[in-house]
Amino acid sequence: MAETDLSLRDADPLEERVQGEGEQFDDENRLTPAFVRAVRESLSDDNEDSTYDLVEPLHPADIADLFELLEKNERGLLAAAITDLMSGEVIAELNDYVREDMVEALSAEAVAGIVEQLDTDDAVQLIEDLDDEDQRAILAEVEPEERAAIESALAYPEETAGRLMQRELVAVPEHMSVGDLIDYLRSDDDLITEFWEVFVVDHRFHPVGSCQLSWILRTPRDIALTDVMKRDQTLIPVDMDQEEVALRFQKYALISAAVVDESGRLVGQLTVDDIVHIIQEEASEDTLLLSGAGEGDINEPLREAYSARVRWLIANLGTAVVASAIIAFFGGAIEQLVALAVLMPIVASIGGNAGTQTMAVTVRAIAMNQLTRSNTGRILWRELRVALMNGATIAVLIGLAVGALFSPPLGMVIAAAMIVNIIVSGMAGVLVPVAFERMDQDPAVASSVFVTMITDSMGFFAFLGLAVASGLVTA
Amino acid sequence: MAETDLSLRDADPLEERVQGEGEQFDDENRLTPAFVRAVRESLSDDNEDSTYDLVEPLHPADIADLFELLEKNERGLLAAAITDLMSGEVIAELNDYVREDMVEALSAEAVAGIVEQLDTDDAVQLIEDLDDEDQRAILAEVEPEERAAIESALAYPEETAGRLMQRELVAVPEHMSVGDLIDYLRSDDDLITEFWEVFVVDHRFHPVGSCQLSWILRTPRDIALTDVMKRDQTLIPVDMDQEEVALRFQKYALISAAVVDESGRLVGQLTVDDIVHIIQEEASEDTLLLSGAGEGDINEPLREAYSARVRWLIANLGTAVVASAIIAFFGGAIEQLVALAVLMPIVASIGGNAGTQTMAVTVRAIAMNQLTRSNTGRILWRELRVALMNGATIAVLIGLAVGALFSPPLGMVIAAAMIVNIIVSGMAGVLVPVAFERMDQDPAVASSVFVTMITDSMGFFAFLGLAVASGLVTA
Repeated sequence: MAETDLSLRDADPLEERVQGEGEQFDDENRLTPAFVRAVRESLSDDNEDSTYDLVEPLHPADIADLFELLEKNERGLLAAAITDLMSGEVIAELNDYVREDMVEALSAEAVAGIVEQLDTDDAVQLIEDLDDEDQRAILAEVEPEERAAIESALAYPEETAGRLMQRELVAVPEHMSVGDLIDYLRSDDDLITEFWEVFVVDHRFHPVGSCQLSWILRTPRDIALTDVMKRDQTLIPVDMDQEEVALRFQKYALISAAVVDESGRLVGQLTVDDIVHIIQEEASEDTLLLSGAGEGDINEPLREAYSARVRWLIANLGTAVVASAIIAFFGGAIEQLVALAVLMPIVASIGGNAGTQTMAVTVRAIAMNQLTRSNTGRILWRELRVALMNGATIAVLIGLAVGALFSPPLGMVIAAAMIVNIIVSGMAGVLVPVAFERMDQDPAVASSVFVTMITDSMGFFAFLGLAVASGLVTA
Repeated sequence: MAETDLSLRDADPLEERVQGEGEQFDDENRLTPAFVRAVRESLSDDNEDSTYDLVEPLHPADIADLFELLEKNERGLLAAAITDLMSGEVIAELNDYVREDMVEALSAEAVAGIVEQLDTDDAVQLIEDLDDEDQRAILAEVEPEERAAIESALAYPEETAGRLMQRELVAVPEHMSVGDLIDYLRSDDDLITEFWEVFVVDHRFHPVGSCQLSWILRTPRDIALTDVMKRDQTLIPVDMDQEEVALRFQKYALISAAVVDESGRLVGQLTVDDIVHIIQEEASEDTLLLSGAGEGDINEPLREAYSARVRWLIANLGTAVVASAIIAFFGGAIEQLVALAVLMPIVASIGGNAGTQTMAVTVRAIAMNQLTRSNTGRILWRELRVALMNGATIAVLIGLAVGALFSPPLGMVIAAAMIVNIIVSGMAGVLVPVAFERMDQDPAVASSVFVTMITDSMGFFAFLGLAVASGLVTA
């Protein structure tokens, strides 16, 4: 039940775990290059015993990190050498692509051997990305009961609560007292040993309340469970998207939550340690989406990285062509005053930066449910004022510099163009993501392309157009 | 102990909490504009009772959301109307700036009244951003014991484990049996009621192991605690930075962890529900940092938002000047062929996008400890190949288009410039953040400025330089 194996780290757990200064770890608790090299050499010597001895003292999460630091072909070799160390914790911590590389390098029997030592949710994670044939080959080697549980989890759509949940949980009827519950927990050997809440259900197996274990431990045996439990619990529908699940866990500070099917029956539970990864993923994916880098995982296969990124580069090419067309329209003006060509990228570049700033702020506020219909107007007004302040500052700086180096009229033109562009960029940075969100689209995905198009085009148009309008050049 | 108050939601908890379709909530579980308007009207009517009745049925996390959706001046009014609903959960869920607005609008007595109903960690969060004088005024109203605890927490630097931790925890001596522990938990009325682990300590109050409550509940009374507990626990030093704390919780899937001082004494505990916010913040801050939007919070005071953003716009102005200088150097070439001015922003823009993609991927991999000295070479090689593929694709598209619309030699020049710039951008996107990280700087903060400078300058230089070198124009 409790893990009492004596690992290297136990020699002086405080020193090892707090400082992370064992020879395997650097001062930020990452595996050292020297340690990774040692594992790599041992793998290329085909020495499974020495590999096992090197890896065995590591925490499962560090074993997962080790897999990620190895080359693709080494991942299967390592998995084969340390099969019995491949716990649910290792699987759960592994990067999706790395997990796939590793599983594909193992035989169906070896994978089935790992699957059998895992909880359903971890087993599902291990095999869900394989193709149907490989899945069938592996499941054929697994015991029928475990197989049925895995197959029923795979029947739910990817990235929903049904895929993520674990079926193993503790559910008890309403009539129990605290004492009854403790006796039941001690007597049933088949129960799971790691859980954070007990779910109280009615005769239809619908949840009616939940009990934190600390409440049970602090209450006399003869008190009824219904007097201890919390009735107002957050229930997760089995088809809820994982992003929404992560928001609920975060908002309501949940440690675990009951998952219910369409009829309200308790079918599984989710615990925060599994959700933390999703919170992290969802929170960091906006950076990647805004830059057009797709999933942007360093372990993603080359072809997928290429196709995710080139798509946005091509979209960007389209928007750049719009900007070019505006410049072409003012070709005559540029021939008269080549300084316009020299300065115009400055207006576009600063406008682009201002737009990206506002867009990043807006996308994040939308993702965190902080920006809703109730306050969109206020935020727009706020961003307008920030844009005015930024625009005025930058206009003065660039206006004075260009006025001195080129000519005062050109300084006036670029200053005015800068204010216009920073204001337009600021408004676009709020309105484009908000518009996508209102159309039920992820604002992080396509906002960048539109905001860039607006800031580039408006930058060139305002600058060149004002140069003509002011009589500095003729169109 | 357990929350059994009957709120609106309890009418049919499943329907209300699962669907979030009460009149207060929209289909994404956000407060509706109609509900927010009702609260706002009630506040402006100065009707504290009706405000209280409106807000009382809400979950604490939804009360926090409500504060965020209100105007600045309404936040103090709401807090005054619902003082006794201001639980630790509301405080913990509140945005930092909103919390400050609210606290500043209340009297020292009112804040002290709220502080007294909070755990130390929530109380610290409530007042830590106030100036010293306000803090003293509030603490003077608080009971000495609570005050001492808060003052000692405030003595730790901001954003460290010492500030975040809660002092309330359950620690027991090594010699106890499971039965002794349960009797102790039931008998001591001063103990906290919400905890997830029991810490076992030696006579110096150094942690020697930890017990999940489920292990205790599943074990017979006569078994020794030392046989149930896990010895190999992750200890958090009191001065550890919150980002590092968040990484540990995530990596080792922790629910709670013991915090120890320099001498190894147990001084507090951290629980995952508090850490989840930090994981979210740290993961999403890179988007904001990369865009130069500072903290990028929609509730940040205007002046702070301005100063955070204008700094990066000015830095960007500096890099744009470098790019302009390169264009100026080729002024003669542009006068000969104005098409160069028309097309040059395309090269810079696509290069910038390619650089941003690679930079986003790299920054994220560094933040998640996936990119270390052990695999930097491999990642650089990977990004070089992606850049070659992207560069070739974009070069063919733009080369053919420019060849057809302008002239074949100009098509060749822009195609070659595009390949050069995408490769340079890809390499800069990896090397700049990696260099910052090796110099112990946050790679998300300043990478953008450098990568933009490199991609803009190289874009113009490659395109205009190749136009001259190919003999298309003379310099």
